[in-house]
Amino acid sequence: MIHLDINCDMAEGFSRGRQSEDLGIMKWITSVNIACGLHAGDPHIICRTIEAALKHDVKIGAHPGYADIQGFGRRSMNLSVNEVYELVLYQIAALAGTTKALGGELHHVKLHGALYNEAAERPELAEAVVQAIADIDEELILYALSGSKLVEAGLEHGLQVAEEVFAERAYLPNGRLAPRELEGSVLISKEERMEQTRQLVLKQRVMTVNGEHIDLAADTLCVHHESHDVLQFLVEVHKWAKQNDVKIEPITAR
Amino acid sequence: MIHLDINCDMAEGFSRGRQSEDLGIMKWITSVNIACGLHAGDPHIICRTIEAALKHDVKIGAHPGYADIQGFGRRSMNLSVNEVYELVLYQIAALAGTTKALGGELHHVKLHGALYNEAAERPELAEAVVQAIADIDEELILYALSGSKLVEAGLEHGLQVAEEVFAERAYLPNGRLAPRELEGSVLISKEERMEQTRQLVLKQRVMTVNGEHIDLAADTLCVHHESHDVLQFLVEVHKWAKQNDVKIEPITAR
Amino acid sequence: MIHLDINCDMAEGFSRGRQSEDLGIMKWITSVNIACGLHAGDPHIICRTIEAALKHDVKIGAHPGYADIQGFGRRSMNLSVNEVYELVLYQIAALAGTTKALGGELHHVKLHGALYNEAAERPELAEAVVQAIADIDEELILYALSGSKLVEAGLEHGLQVAEEVFAERAYLPNGRLAPRELEGSVLISKEERMEQTRQLVLKQRVMTVNGEHIDLAADTLCVHHESHDVLQFLVEVHKWAKQNDVKIEPITAR
Amino acid sequence: MIHLDINCDMAEGFSRGRQSEDLGIMKWITSVNIACGLHAGDPHIICRTIEAALKHDVKIGAHPGYADIQGFGRRSMNLSVNEVYELVLYQIAALAGTTKALGGELHHVKLHGALYNEAAERPELAEAVVQAIADIDEELILYALSGSKLVEAGLEHGLQVAEEVFAERAYLPNGRLAPRELEGSVLISKEERMEQTRQLVLKQRVMTVNGEHIDLAADTLCVHHESHDVLQFLVEVHKWAKQNDVKIEPITAR
Repeated sequence: MIHLDINCDMAEGFSRGRQSEDLGIMKWITSVNIACGLHAGDPHIICRTIEAALKHDVKIGAHPGYADIQGFGRRSMNLSVNEVYELVLYQIAALAGTTKALGGELHHVKLHGALYNEAAERPELAEAVVQAIADIDEELILYALSGSKLVEAGLEHGLQVAEEVFAERAYLPNGRLAPRELEGSVLISKEERMEQTRQLVLKQRVMTVNGEHIDLAADTLCVHHESHDVLQFLVEVHKWAKQNDVKIEPITAR
Repeated sequence: MIHLDINCDMAEGFSRGRQSEDLGIMKWITSVNIACGLHAGDPHIICRTIEAALKHDVKIGAHPGYADIQGFGRRSMNLSVNEVYELVLYQIAALAGTTKALGGELHHVKLHGALYNEAAERPELAEAVVQAIADIDEELILYALSGSKLVEAGLEHGLQVAEEVFAERAYLPNGRLAPRELEGSVLISKEERMEQTRQLVLKQRVMTVNGEHIDLAADTLCVHHESHDVLQFLVEVHKWAKQNDVKIEPITAR
Repeated sequence: MIHLDINCDMAEGFSRGRQSEDLGIMKWITSVNIACGLHAGDPHIICRTIEAALKHDVKIGAHPGYADIQGFGRRSMNLSVNEVYELVLYQIAALAGTTKALGGELHHVKLHGALYNEAAERPELAEAVVQAIADIDEELILYALSGSKLVEAGLEHGLQVAEEVFAERAYLPNGRLAPRELEGSVLISKEERMEQTRQLVLKQRVMTVNGEHIDLAADTLCVHHESHDVLQFLVEVHKWAKQNDVKIEPITAR
Repeated sequence: MIHLDINCDMAEGFSRGRQSEDLGIMKWITSVNIACGLHAGDPHIICRTIEAALKHDVKIGAHPGYADIQGFGRRSMNLSVNEVYELVLYQIAALAGTTKALGGELHHVKLHGALYNEAAERPELAEAVVQAIADIDEELILYALSGSKLVEAGLEHGLQVAEEVFAERAYLPNGRLAPRELEGSVLISKEERMEQTRQLVLKQRVMTVNGEHIDLAADTLCVHHESHDVLQFLVEVHKWAKQNDVKIEPITAR
């Protein structure tokens, strides 16, 4: 039987902002990555999201990013390796302690935006991130772009690593995500996303932007909350999983 | 013939954030209040919104608020009168200069959130705001809560004032808005909003939360972008206006 | 023998900012309150300060404040009680986890600025703060304005409380600090500060702005880093302490 | 006779912060670059600095930087060219309008930190900055690193350009500033700074870190407020200027 975790980034707004985030998605995911307050999020939306996750038995992760609210953590910033270590340390600490105080336990760490992509490529950043995670808690599971340098760094350090794939993002031939600036980088059609999901989960491979297939380990599937029909997509994924002997469940700490 | 301006707050997010704001609403409004970067907004979303307003011939206003991104400018802050003057001055300056550089002209100023409500009540804050507007440009039109202390302060100072009413917010017996924390403070049903709009525009009065009617001047009607069916509501308002000899158009500077 | 803790607020800037903070003061204090990133501070200056404290064997505390960088946390903000709880929870969590990862242990919590003053007066805020501390770790020591409502709330909840007095701030007849806006609220002359310190430590009393003396418990003495001659003042305090059988040492967790 | 402008960056803190900026330096400089609120500064410290400049007849400039308070605008951020244009536009607009409202007139623009250094090297960023300045007001004088790509871009566009040199920073052989991370990049000794100033002003050349001299146009000399003996240094510069027929005065708009 194949096991599949489904994760989603949340708390990426501000609690008093225009629209409160729809927490209904909690019913359809198995792990949540919670913004930590530097690229988005504030103590209040963080707590509200933790509480919803606890209620729905969804695994809670920290989702640290660059301290760039205007750019939503999507712009690379020229930090020193030490600054990256400290940036990630602070954010995981905030989430881990807040989660524990509210009666839960931090389960994993997934980087956000530009930091996610850079740590996937640059070994010295990957190492800083892995060190920060380990210094908080060596039991934390690292969610990292499947096949990336961050996966390697995590394994080398002895962390448990979940290789992450995306239902909704186009892939480059080298296995990296097509940049958001590129047209077609975000898959819109539900059928395309379902097909990508099926390939990833059953065959551990994906079709890249140039039409070829590459192999990709797929421990956890990321869906995006802002896709307007994400709930319908998730319902379909669950239905398909049931029919294909895929068990949707969180990643178990070893 | 009755004249009606329809205004909407916009640019209240961040340009690289999760969801880009739907600028389609520009077709149905006659003036826009653009967040200035302190309670929300960044230079990029501001410019994009100005350009859309210019394209649709929508009048451009500055929408200054408290410097409180986490609280979205909705929490009162204990600023000195002088700090309020400077806070508003800076934000109008930023919007006025940016608009001019992009080929437009700033038309009005409307405060945001807690600052909007406090300046409606406290004469010393109202005076600081009016002074800031006048020090930038005495031709700017002040949009202020209908019947409020801010209307008085603006008129006293010789500013042109547009008294603002809300299609979607419940009113207290004293003519102030019911606080957002109160249940029922935001009208959900489209029929309720249409009825409130008809009363406000044709009779310049509104039914308050205790069921009585009070008089309210209605120069400009505020709609909120985040109401999910706001476009349908606006189409209906336009249709009703045409049938009732109400001309939807911006407020003309005198 | 009298015991005296000397504490100081630090990390209240940004790590790449104009002037790096002089960490030399660590030699003369026994506990440090570290800004948590919301009224001031960033992950980098926080880590640098923790490391300096560990090196000098200074006890480490979290120093949470309102999320108001422009106002340096010195302006009251109209948060709900629940928002205060979450605001404080997040900040203590960030400091506690970061300190632990760097090889130390969080020892105490001291509020900053407007939040410090408001929680000293308003029981419902005091309760929210105490609950946040206890939910992180019931062993944390609460530093609170001597004689305040926050002291009461902490004791009632079973927390260990250190009553704090100030060498450099003028006192009102009710035992509260004279607001910074008031002339004379910050004592400049070293002799005045020494005299106030002597009175506080030896007699547990202070002379208020109207010339009368009131009683004040004095477990910990706050000095401010930005007093330009603070090091000389501290040298003098240490010398006086030695001569008067006052032992300068951190507060021991019971 | 040689003319020399002396400029200084100011308002690079927050108005309620720990230490208020010493405005006494206004007596010894002829132009001031005022932080615009994104890398540092808030509406209140901006207004206070404008008022001091007006009082001392010091020319007022905008000092825009990256929106990175934690990094003090000293970390490069991967913005699109269009984002740089908008970022600079917004900040100049804010300063220009605020200055005008307070009775003055904006005189120049000088970039801050990483943005200053990057626009000195990268023609496409330089072009975006120049376009933003021109779109606000073609009469604004551009202060730019002497000999840089930004100087070229400004001249090509028809802006008046003042080539800037530094009394206190070491130079690389290519005429760029030695990065702050490098040891010796900030000159400490007053004599060294005086010597560099004399060379720059009288001979329009400087000795670089490898001991060779290069030519550098020197229209305006930057001093840094945070040098603890900057006032003594400035007194000495003024004395030396008087003895050497160097007239210290602002740059005149042509």
